[in-house]
Amino acid sequence: MQGKFIVVEGLEGAGKSSAIASLVSHLQAKSIPTLTVREPGGTPMAEALRDIVKQSWHEQVTAETELLLMYASRAQLVANVIRPALAAGKWVIADRHDLSSRAYQGGGRQLGDDKLQTLKQLVLGDFNPDLTLLLDIDPEIGLQRARERGELDRIEQEALAFFQRTRERYLAIAAQERQIVVVDADQSMAAVHQAMINAMEHALFSSVRGGA
Amino acid sequence: MQGKFIVVEGLEGAGKSSAIASLVSHLQAKSIPTLTVREPGGTPMAEALRDIVKQSWHEQVTAETELLLMYASRAQLVANVIRPALAAGKWVIADRHDLSSRAYQGGGRQLGDDKLQTLKQLVLGDFNPDLTLLLDIDPEIGLQRARERGELDRIEQEALAFFQRTRERYLAIAAQERQIVVVDADQSMAAVHQAMINAMEHALFSSVRGGA
Ligand SMILES: Nc1ncnc2c1ncn2[C@@H]1O[C@H](COP(=O)(O)OP(=O)(O)OP(=O)(O)O)[C@@H](O)[C@H]1O
Ligand SMILES: Nc1ncnc2c1ncn2[C@@H]1O[C@H](COP(=O)(O)OP(=O)(O)OP(=O)(O)O)[C@@H](O)[C@H]1O
Ligand SMILES: [Mg+2]
Ligand SMILES: [Mg+2]
Repeated sequence: MQGKFIVVEGLEGAGKSSAIASLVSHLQAKSIPTLTVREPGGTPMAEALRDIVKQSWHEQVTAETELLLMYASRAQLVANVIRPALAAGKWVIADRHDLSSRAYQGGGRQLGDDKLQTLKQLVLGDFNPDLTLLLDIDPEIGLQRARERGELDRIEQEALAFFQRTRERYLAIAAQERQIVVVDADQSMAAVHQAMINAMEHALFSSVRGGA
Repeated sequence: MQGKFIVVEGLEGAGKSSAIASLVSHLQAKSIPTLTVREPGGTPMAEALRDIVKQSWHEQVTAETELLLMYASRAQLVANVIRPALAAGKWVIADRHDLSSRAYQGGGRQLGDDKLQTLKQLVLGDFNPDLTLLLDIDPEIGLQRARERGELDRIEQEALAFFQRTRERYLAIAAQERQIVVVDADQSMAAVHQAMINAMEHALFSSVRGGA
């Protein structure tokens, strides 16, 4: 049986990495085989692209270039890792996916959502997550958490207004798409994790599934 | 005054590199300032992407990934090198540009021209060459020339049918677009270079310019 594809999204320091660890142990307790991945990266070529997009260059990196590199990495990860794992019945838990591009490059870098949807369709066609959990956080709080953890990369060094635009775009898209569930990430870790597990249980395990 | 943007296209071994040298000396004899570039590559970041797309990987490289990396490299080169040079009045002579993607990824890799035109519009908008010179060659002859020159990279190692599809797409596009001039590259170098210079003179220097 085909596995499920669950994406965890949110700004830097929202708590994605810790939340994923908690989701995975919840699934493993149900004897569900899991695979975790993170973007950009996850194959040898995609990791090389991750280095290129995160490092600082002595040249202007255009918003389009950044976007294309995110999608190049994503195309490799989906084809060579995510699709085969889902076909083998694994549940794949991803730290960022397509929605990050729509929020960061579409919103933060102001490329707009039309271009983002066009590129998504061109590269991934109708391949979509079964569920996206969006950890919503005020960027000032998230960046403060991320700063305590270590040095910031090229994208993390953007001004606060960039992350505010990114957060707004995250929330605007979530308001329109049913497979995206917003979780308030400005709570204790335990409360965040419980909210995520509840959302996942409701979306992917509850036997009564909405329905008119 | 804005410079002109001239692109030289064709399969491996068509004779682009030698033709460009000849075009440049012709322009320099007219005291026109020139800049030559080649794709993929041409900025530090674009050169890093050139290495990634040309090397062999222990994973399948999807046609979409290859396409996205070509465009990422192109976006950097256009923004940081070609546009500034044109604005400074230089004539830019490019060894490959957008038409290579339409022929190789659109035709050779069979992604189709619709996707290619969509991506071009998304990344480059209405930025276009003033003239494209397409050196048309039978791939068997071109590859034989290229093989004598040195080792073949990941793309050059494709089967003959790939290059036949690429050649057909080159010619099909050229038949529809007026700024592309096809030059028979299966002639002596001197004859090829003279044909290119004639085409350039006619397109960019002749004072009587078509007109209804
Ligand atoms: N709810 C929370 N309350 C307080 N601190 C938290 C909370 N969630 C995570 N943190 C801490 O914030 C820091 C960032 O968390 P984490 O690495 O999980 O975020 P992230 O979303 O994965 O960030 P990045 O996008 O940078 O990878 C960590 O030190 C983590 O322990
Ligand atoms: N018209 C010609 N007749 C015979 N040999 C030629 C001709 N044009 C080029 N060559 C030779 O073929 C080889 C390939 O030429 P060149 O490097 O100019 O091609 P190219 O189109 O730049 O190839 P690539 O795409 O691999 O860079 C060179 O050794 C060159 O001297
Ligand atoms: Mg993380
Ligand atoms: Mg050459």
